[in-house]
Amino acid sequence: MATTKTVYRSKIGLPPGTLVHIGKKKTDKVVISVFDYDPENLFEKKDIAPEECASLKDKATVTWINVDGLHDVEKIGKLGKAYNIHALLLEDILNTRHRPKVEFYDEHTFFTFKMIGFDKHKTQITREQVSIILGNNNVISFQERPGDIFDVIRDRIRNKKGKVREKGAGYLVYLLVDIVVDHYFIITEHISERLEELEADILDRPDEGTLGVLQDFKKDLISLRRAIYPIREAISNLSKEADEDTAKYFRDLYDHAIQVSESLETYKDMVSGLKDLYLSSISHQMNKVMQVLTIMATIFIPLTFIAGIYGMNFEVMPELKWKYGYFGVWVLMAIIFIGMLFFFKRKKWF
Amino acid sequence: MATTKTVYRSKIGLPPGTLVHIGKKKTDKVVISVFDYDPENLFEKKDIAPEECASLKDKATVTWINVDGLHDVEKIGKLGKAYNIHALLLEDILNTRHRPKVEFYDEHTFFTFKMIGFDKHKTQITREQVSIILGNNNVISFQERPGDIFDVIRDRIRNKKGKVREKGAGYLVYLLVDIVVDHYFIITEHISERLEELEADILDRPDEGTLGVLQDFKKDLISLRRAIYPIREAISNLSKEADEDTAKYFRDLYDHAIQVSESLETYKDMVSGLKDLYLSSISHQMNKVMQVLTIMATIFIPLTFIAGIYGMNFEVMPELKWKYGYFGVWVLMAIIFIGMLFFFKRKKWF
Amino acid sequence: MATTKTVYRSKIGLPPGTLVHIGKKKTDKVVISVFDYDPENLFEKKDIAPEECASLKDKATVTWINVDGLHDVEKIGKLGKAYNIHALLLEDILNTRHRPKVEFYDEHTFFTFKMIGFDKHKTQITREQVSIILGNNNVISFQERPGDIFDVIRDRIRNKKGKVREKGAGYLVYLLVDIVVDHYFIITEHISERLEELEADILDRPDEGTLGVLQDFKKDLISLRRAIYPIREAISNLSKEADEDTAKYFRDLYDHAIQVSESLETYKDMVSGLKDLYLSSISHQMNKVMQVLTIMATIFIPLTFIAGIYGMNFEVMPELKWKYGYFGVWVLMAIIFIGMLFFFKRKKWF
Amino acid sequence: MATTKTVYRSKIGLPPGTLVHIGKKKTDKVVISVFDYDPENLFEKKDIAPEECASLKDKATVTWINVDGLHDVEKIGKLGKAYNIHALLLEDILNTRHRPKVEFYDEHTFFTFKMIGFDKHKTQITREQVSIILGNNNVISFQERPGDIFDVIRDRIRNKKGKVREKGAGYLVYLLVDIVVDHYFIITEHISERLEELEADILDRPDEGTLGVLQDFKKDLISLRRAIYPIREAISNLSKEADEDTAKYFRDLYDHAIQVSESLETYKDMVSGLKDLYLSSISHQMNKVMQVLTIMATIFIPLTFIAGIYGMNFEVMPELKWKYGYFGVWVLMAIIFIGMLFFFKRKKWF
Amino acid sequence: MATTKTVYRSKIGLPPGTLVHIGKKKTDKVVISVFDYDPENLFEKKDIAPEECASLKDKATVTWINVDGLHDVEKIGKLGKAYNIHALLLEDILNTRHRPKVEFYDEHTFFTFKMIGFDKHKTQITREQVSIILGNNNVISFQERPGDIFDVIRDRIRNKKGKVREKGAGYLVYLLVDIVVDHYFIITEHISERLEELEADILDRPDEGTLGVLQDFKKDLISLRRAIYPIREAISNLSKEADEDTAKYFRDLYDHAIQVSESLETYKDMVSGLKDLYLSSISHQMNKVMQVLTIMATIFIPLTFIAGIYGMNFEVMPELKWKYGYFGVWVLMAIIFIGMLFFFKRKKWF
Repeated sequence: MATTKTVYRSKIGLPPGTLVHIGKKKTDKVVISVFDYDPENLFEKKDIAPEECASLKDKATVTWINVDGLHDVEKIGKLGKAYNIHALLLEDILNTRHRPKVEFYDEHTFFTFKMIGFDKHKTQITREQVSIILGNNNVISFQERPGDIFDVIRDRIRNKKGKVREKGAGYLVYLLVDIVVDHYFIITEHISERLEELEADILDRPDEGTLGVLQDFKKDLISLRRAIYPIREAISNLSKEADEDTAKYFRDLYDHAIQVSESLETYKDMVSGLKDLYLSSISHQMNKVMQVLTIMATIFIPLTFIAGIYGMNFEVMPELKWKYGYFGVWVLMAIIFIGMLFFFKRKKWF
Repeated sequence: MATTKTVYRSKIGLPPGTLVHIGKKKTDKVVISVFDYDPENLFEKKDIAPEECASLKDKATVTWINVDGLHDVEKIGKLGKAYNIHALLLEDILNTRHRPKVEFYDEHTFFTFKMIGFDKHKTQITREQVSIILGNNNVISFQERPGDIFDVIRDRIRNKKGKVREKGAGYLVYLLVDIVVDHYFIITEHISERLEELEADILDRPDEGTLGVLQDFKKDLISLRRAIYPIREAISNLSKEADEDTAKYFRDLYDHAIQVSESLETYKDMVSGLKDLYLSSISHQMNKVMQVLTIMATIFIPLTFIAGIYGMNFEVMPELKWKYGYFGVWVLMAIIFIGMLFFFKRKKWF
Repeated sequence: MATTKTVYRSKIGLPPGTLVHIGKKKTDKVVISVFDYDPENLFEKKDIAPEECASLKDKATVTWINVDGLHDVEKIGKLGKAYNIHALLLEDILNTRHRPKVEFYDEHTFFTFKMIGFDKHKTQITREQVSIILGNNNVISFQERPGDIFDVIRDRIRNKKGKVREKGAGYLVYLLVDIVVDHYFIITEHISERLEELEADILDRPDEGTLGVLQDFKKDLISLRRAIYPIREAISNLSKEADEDTAKYFRDLYDHAIQVSESLETYKDMVSGLKDLYLSSISHQMNKVMQVLTIMATIFIPLTFIAGIYGMNFEVMPELKWKYGYFGVWVLMAIIFIGMLFFFKRKKWF
Repeated sequence: MATTKTVYRSKIGLPPGTLVHIGKKKTDKVVISVFDYDPENLFEKKDIAPEECASLKDKATVTWINVDGLHDVEKIGKLGKAYNIHALLLEDILNTRHRPKVEFYDEHTFFTFKMIGFDKHKTQITREQVSIILGNNNVISFQERPGDIFDVIRDRIRNKKGKVREKGAGYLVYLLVDIVVDHYFIITEHISERLEELEADILDRPDEGTLGVLQDFKKDLISLRRAIYPIREAISNLSKEADEDTAKYFRDLYDHAIQVSESLETYKDMVSGLKDLYLSSISHQMNKVMQVLTIMATIFIPLTFIAGIYGMNFEVMPELKWKYGYFGVWVLMAIIFIGMLFFFKRKKWF
Repeated sequence: MATTKTVYRSKIGLPPGTLVHIGKKKTDKVVISVFDYDPENLFEKKDIAPEECASLKDKATVTWINVDGLHDVEKIGKLGKAYNIHALLLEDILNTRHRPKVEFYDEHTFFTFKMIGFDKHKTQITREQVSIILGNNNVISFQERPGDIFDVIRDRIRNKKGKVREKGAGYLVYLLVDIVVDHYFIITEHISERLEELEADILDRPDEGTLGVLQDFKKDLISLRRAIYPIREAISNLSKEADEDTAKYFRDLYDHAIQVSESLETYKDMVSGLKDLYLSSISHQMNKVMQVLTIMATIFIPLTFIAGIYGMNFEVMPELKWKYGYFGVWVLMAIIFIGMLFFFKRKKWF
């Protein structure tokens, strides 16, 4: 937190358009890799220099430039210059805390959103910003760290699987976004499973930590919602601007995005349902505790009182001299005991 | 859950338009059956091959092709090819977790929604996806399993009941959707009855399980809402695209869909009302328990104290020697006892 | 409930437009009565045959046909045929569970809504469906049972009170709806009074039944809302389609409908406020009970302990032999007693 | 309440446009007073007859007619006739329970809203309906009772303060509404102060009455909201219809109306925050009570038990004969006592 | 509070457009300072007289006039006259309680919003009103007190950093607003940190003050929301009216404003989550207290009863004479003790 804050504060006062990387450095070196293809030919190079990319700009082939890592501001600046990218747009790419949006510039369509995944041990949800710039025949994608999520697309391009080699840059953007949205579904399924486990736990035996877990859960959902909700509008805008053929695909994607949002909404309802369930379990439990205490106390208090009476040391206490006095006291106590049991039975306390 | 997840995950990375059945296999064999009719003639065949269907495509008669089961991807692919159905559209049909929607393609109108029913023992609500493709003079409907819900329409076609034989393919779609929406009403009535039973239970004697039942209930309502709500918009869109005569019917259907949604909304309110009722019963009960405990303890604690006093073994305790000491203690205790009763009476504790 | 359900289920499978009465039979015989008037002439007849009505259709005078009771499907069907009413529209009239709406057909404007009243003993709110068909120069109104609510309008027509005889059919519709909306105000006033009684009850002494009453209250409000809310939109649509002169009246009516809705909204807020008040009273009461118990127990537990000490039978207990031992114990107890009282006073427990 | 109800019910059945005063009679005599001015001349008269007003109607000067009191239906009817006011409009003016709105008639703009003030002892919020009719060069304002709120405007007219004498009737309407909206700010400030007092009270020592006060508070806020919210839309509509110069003023007023609404919204949030604070104080208090009870009971119960043991009268009880038996028991008790204190210390119970 | 109120009340009755400073006087002297620049030249003067400013009005260079302090109504009035500023607009500038808005006048665009910062000790959030008037080639900014927030912009102008010297007055406005919005981010980060501290506190050990802190927190959030929300709409309107080049920058700003709003929304959710967490901790704690009490009481009550029995003084009590009577009683008590422990173990009470 401290790091981010410092960075953000240091940014205040800089002229707009000044390139500053806001976020954590998640990889060692910023690596640019490139795919350049048409239905027949394919050129692929990893770790290319930004200057070399420039030469691919005006070719009729589709060019996909992928940038892994955002901290090398100079390198990205060069790439931006080569592809004529607006300074504000580069600033947004470097600010990893930006909310998802699509923006239409004269030469470019800019699309930024969040990739949601798990950390290594699958215990925490991770967010990573992905930005895509769609120009004429070229696509530039930016990721915070090298990831294997786009490998399936690279594979399809290399092996001519599906229609990617035949279609244009817009279809490639669709594929990139589609992969990310598909991963949203995996997250929602993971959440759904954890919710069911939690419900079972609460019904079985609620403990002190449950509410903390639910609170964390809710924070995760809020954070996911902030990452995922705006993408709906962005995809909808993309579909309106795309050519008719690609638009169909984006509309399909839009349906998926809505479905993910609805799932999140449902989970939020379920989390608050679980909270109620937990609180009610606690209060039910307290009720049971109270009943046990009340039954015990109420039965034995009068009995102990009677014992106390005949423990008094008055000189004149005729009962103490009766032959069956002691026996009579036991009978009296038994009557009280049984009467109390009947009373609680009638009250349905056990 | 595990199955679905695996399927969904395995889908990631496949090129869009690849046909994959997402959902449970609910029938053994995918069966295609066909009705082809005009006011005079009727051709009916069960378990027809997809290739044979193709021959019916360009006839002036209305053709209704019904597909039961979705797991035979190849068979459905053939049918899709015969009727020129877009790959994305077939993908949506096979994904049984799709949200209800209508989509207009050049040649087809695509409509997918959920059929809601009960399982055999009427204890659980079941959801099944129904998809309908309305082309020129033909209707193709897809169900997850063979069902008898559309039999009344088959019967009307066979016996020329109503106007179905005189009207076109749009009217047939209306009939299919109408049947499904009518079943929604049955579900809402069932829910309404169960809510009243639950309320009676809670007022009679709330037990620990009640909140779990209410939580399940709420989950059912959320799930129904997700299945039913989008259908309103879909029907509304259908009515806008339909010819004026059919549009009237769809507008009527739209009213029904709204009415179902409103019922669900009402039930949701009532479920949360019942939850409050339950929680308040619990707390009222606890209050009663506390009062019993307090009355008993508060009455007997001073009496036991007095008994304790005269159980002390001091050598000099003049009261112990008094002739009426013992009697006097009883009188004192009776006064305290009656005073306490008056106190609680005034507090209206019993 | 059972009846309705059976009826509704039996309807499934019938071709649309089949006339089925859905609802309870609330009168013995369906009675059609007619008013036919212009500024000079008035023709009035009770219990007219549907065929006879047909003759009035093309007259230049305003014709008001009122139908009491809906179960005689055949009779209403004849009337519908005479006035050329669409089958779907008749179906809606006969389904008493329809939500309020206005629908514009080529020849007719169809308006259906709920009349809200009390049962005989004024303990329960009753809902009755009223449907109005406005044609060219004629108005057909349908009620579930004969009622005196429209008698004031009949009176005005007969006695030329107000402007009804001079104005057209649209004005007559306005009068009919106006009467019904005015009755909504009476209901809201009744609710407001009962809310104030309830609040007084809760502040005076909350008992176990209160929450049940509030829950019933809330159900009533939900049901009223469902009956009244859609009428706003319907009246608004009516005012848009009416001629400028009548439109003014409908806009006025629209204001009233909004006012009723806002009252209901307010009452809903107040009911939930009362629920909070009740729950807090309960918990306040429990707090008081706990304090009484704690004060009693905390004062006497140490005193009883001291008495217990000197009730022990050790041979060597020097205090027992002291001359002022017994007196000293009393002094010690008095000190503890007073100390405790000070402690609770400081804690402001009484 | 009863009065209002009777009035309202008696109105049902009357033809629309029939003038009935709905509300309480708040002044003895309905008094009409008039200002007629242009930049040079001023005519002022109190208690003018409606007929005399008519003569001012077609003058080029601005005429402001103010009516105090609404119960003299006949007098107001005459004024209405003189100024050609629509019957429905007069009906709305006389119904003091109308919601704020603006309505545009051919000759008039009609504006009705609520003046909010305090009663004499500043303990209760009062609502009074103010209606304004803006015609060509004339303004007619209706108040329920004579009030001094408009005196500052009268003063400005008399003394040519500000621009009122130079501007037209629209500007006068603006001034009237402005005064009323300014008084809304005073109310919101009063509410804000009382909220802060209440919060201090709750934090200091919550008592049983607090929730009733909060409930009353909330009812006040709901009532204010109903009175004030619709005025925003009304002022917005007024600004759209006004000439450009006056429109600027109305837009400014619109900002004020929004600000008041937002304050009310904020106060509503704060009231529910206070309710939570109160409930939590109660439950915190109960927790403390429970802890005191538990500490006392838990420490002394075992000690009393030990005393009870050595109070038994068995013939063979070796400890009783030990020389240091009594002393040993005291040591044992001290150990238990201190152990318990440590236990509660560790639990942070005091 | 009292001051503000008095001021506001004293304003009622004044003609609109009368200049009154509403708010606290936060600086000693109202100081006007001026920057006048084009790409080549720069004129800068601090504490300039309003009359002198007038001469800069019609120059082609960009003029930025900054006013620190609002209480010198006369001075500001003169400046307003010099720059032809509408009286209503000046009134809004002087009313520091105005809500953020943008307003378009013929010659000016008026923009008012809140600067959010901390007081010296960083313990409280401060609000200050900033108003900006954008005219043709000139910008007038008003602050309540002299502040260093705009110094970075002054620095850029002086040293030709960034593009400010090359761009027009619109770009300068953007820079001023940008700085303020950037400070909103710092506030949200501060809030986020405090929320995490609070959560840790609540989980560690909730105390009585926590809810008061949360309530204060919520009030801060509500106040921030009121200050920040309207700015979104205002910036959006600014971007629509700006030239295409500046519009891009305002759209970027709009995204930031939305991001801040969303953060506030999230924090509000989290505060209510913390409140639930706190309440649940309290009730969990109470449950634990109850269990300790119940365990102690329930174990020792029967044991004390037994001791009471054998403390009775009946002459005939055979057990007292048994050789192993005392030992037997201890065995019996041990059995009861162990049985109770098993019972509570099974109930999972410890």
